Amino acid sequence: MELVIGTKRWSSWSLRPWLALKRAGVDFTELEVALRRGEATGDEIGCISPSRLAPALRDGDLVIWDSLAICEYLAERYPDAKLWPDDPVLRALGRSACAEMHSGFQALRGECPMALDEPPRKLDLSEATQKNVRRIVALWTGLLARSHGPFLLGDWSIADAFYTPVATRFRTYDVRLADYGDAGAAQGYSDRLLQTPEFLEWERAAQAG
Amino acid sequence: MELVIGTKRWSSWSLRPWLALKRAGVDFTELEVALRRGEATGDEIGCISPSRLAPALRDGDLVIWDSLAICEYLAERYPDAKLWPDDPVLRALGRSACAEMHSGFQALRGECPMALDEPPRKLDLSEATQKNVRRIVALWTGLLARSHGPFLLGDWSIADAFYTPVATRFRTYDVRLADYGDAGAAQGYSDRLLQTPEFLEWERAAQAG
Repeated sequence: MELVIGTKRWSSWSLRPWLALKRAGVDFTELEVALRRGEATGDEIGCISPSRLAPALRDGDLVIWDSLAICEYLAERYPDAKLWPDDPVLRALGRSACAEMHSGFQALRGECPMALDEPPRKLDLSEATQKNVRRIVALWTGLLARSHGPFLLGDWSIADAFYTPVATRFRTYDVRLADYGDAGAAQGYSDRLLQTPEFLEWERAAQAG
Repeated sequence: MELVIGTKRWSSWSLRPWLALKRAGVDFTELEVALRRGEATGDEIGCISPSRLAPALRDGDLVIWDSLAICEYLAERYPDAKLWPDDPVLRALGRSACAEMHSGFQALRGECPMALDEPPRKLDLSEATQKNVRRIVALWTGLLARSHGPFLLGDWSIADAFYTPVATRFRTYDVRLADYGDAGAAQGYSDRLLQTPEFLEWERAAQAG
């Protein structure tokens, strides 16, 4: 299998399926395409993926061209990795959380891009981004209370892959979750996401690259 | 089960899981919340769904708060309805198509909102929206060629639920797919989506409401 990814320090969407591949113990190659070069970036990815966007997973003749679709494919192909929990209710909640991230939180995404090479700095957040942060704190807190942690659905899952880039944004832009309704569980979870061996491996490569 | 939906003539996201519920033959109730009332809309949906957005599915104590997550839940809960095809490759392609719709095509969505109560009218499309249309034509054409139709993955699936609102936009804003690289298959498919008994039932209710 080959995963097409964008520049590691920036490409939050690429990080998600990369984490899932690592957790599943899949032997895969990476093709890193430099982002932020306008049409040249799209053209390069377009040789492999019809959407011209990273990430994309190539498995033989099959190309899967979206982060969530890749994760679902891996969950089906490697059931022993338990990328989704066995409990259908937790799975449905996890998919809701992933889908909300997948289509939403535009203010946070635009204002606080993932930047793994930058030192933390305080940012004045717009009202829209503050609203995103409050919603994420509530979402995390609710799921952690239901599953009893340590990850959103109990054991690490695709839902955690989807929120790992968010945790990096909170760190980079010095967003203290206590200011957004967190009693501690959300901040603890955010810190935990940044301590998994898989994330640390990506971060080292991102900072070296 | 209860499906919380937005105003039927406008709520493209609500239409998608509604179609899946109908195709699965599920006995469900609808709660229609009037959209475009600012905070009042969010407050009303927020009594049921944590994201404050329609659609949401309530099944006993469980609330699933996103269109794609609802469809995945239904596919698991009603396997005989075959909301996803049995073939894992087609399923992966279908999920890619759904996910691309779920997170993308912002220009088309903003410029050509679903409006089932409005008569068709020609619209000058921006360059960004034209690009979206070309991409959708290519996506549909590729999947239809691979599956041999009549729907994107062969039999009707969640992927078709996701593109039915797009077909209504093409009709409402008089977008001729032949102008965007279609040799006929995409236009035929677009017309077909608007002729399913399930869509026609939604449309009648939307126009009466």
